[in-house]
Amino acid sequence: MSRPANRRPENHKISRELFVLTYGALVAQLCKDHDQDEDVNKYLDDMGYSIGIRLVEDFLARSALKKCRSYSETADIIAQGAFKMYLGVTPNVTCTNAKGNVFSLILDKNPLVDFVEELPAARSSLCYCSILCGAIRGALETVNLAAEVTFIQDPLKGDEVTEIGITFLKKVEDKKKKRNK
Amino acid sequence: MSRPANRRPENHKISRELFVLTYGALVAQLCKDHDQDEDVNKYLDDMGYSIGIRLVEDFLARSALKKCRSYSETADIIAQGAFKMYLGVTPNVTCTNAKGNVFSLILDKNPLVDFVEELPAARSSLCYCSILCGAIRGALETVNLAAEVTFIQDPLKGDEVTEIGITFLKKVEDKKKKRNK
Repeated sequence: MSRPANRRPENHKISRELFVLTYGALVAQLCKDHDQDEDVNKYLDDMGYSIGIRLVEDFLARSALKKCRSYSETADIIAQGAFKMYLGVTPNVTCTNAKGNVFSLILDKNPLVDFVEELPAARSSLCYCSILCGAIRGALETVNLAAEVTFIQDPLKGDEVTEIGITFLKKVEDKKKKRNK
Repeated sequence: MSRPANRRPENHKISRELFVLTYGALVAQLCKDHDQDEDVNKYLDDMGYSIGIRLVEDFLARSALKKCRSYSETADIIAQGAFKMYLGVTPNVTCTNAKGNVFSLILDKNPLVDFVEELPAARSSLCYCSILCGAIRGALETVNLAAEVTFIQDPLKGDEVTEIGITFLKKVEDKKKKRNK
């Protein structure tokens, strides 16, 4: 199941409904296979990480981006570039600390939960969209930016909005930094 | 995880890459959990069935379709309506028997396998896109059309094209037939 080189689909868009329902089927399958919510969250995050590693290649190939000069610029590109391109939504970005390495991506509507009303009672610790955190982490790591990515607010847990926190852990300093453009 | 009524996302399109990679993660997870290819195929088909049941509601709500008067018309709507709407591709449709109840949907390119080069050697009986058969079956059953849906040709098994066979099993005869429009 490896990715062939130099192969690009002509039409990059598909129905969001099909994706959202398929993602729901994936989460349901994981819940069936794992009793602990933490295990499901970990699986989703790991899958997201693998997806992020592959998606960032696609993103860099399709974007005419210049090299990011700051964490702030990188956070903007995740929101206005990647989220827009892959999920069709653009989160608001805010920097939440003085040091300038902690950011929040805030979405009024998270497309991944379009068909989800609430978490089942027995699954109150499930982080349904954990795959998004993994995908951001995997994509950033591929361009040599270590980050912690976690859900801070989640409407499925009663919050008003979806808030994803990104904490950049260190500066890009080795040769791979030229990929972060 | 039920579907709220009267809720519609504004933007119905997302990136195909994200969907295809997420689907790949789902198949990989099932392969990890089940040794037998037949079990994985069954899971994918079952998941597709659940997705089809929900997707057909969305499809009927978004399409201004008149009632189908023949199996041929139904097959055309699956290809030109549903496949186009949800996967962004339009299969060719051929009727393959004199009785007029067996059809083939033929795709030169199957978007679901965009990033898949070949099946792992140990997974030669895997029907990677089995979810599509389940989805068609679930959608048809919801509008009271019983059908058998199977893969006939699959490029992952060395065939030139993707061919999905649909055999309609009986006529619509009860009250629910009015939903098939």
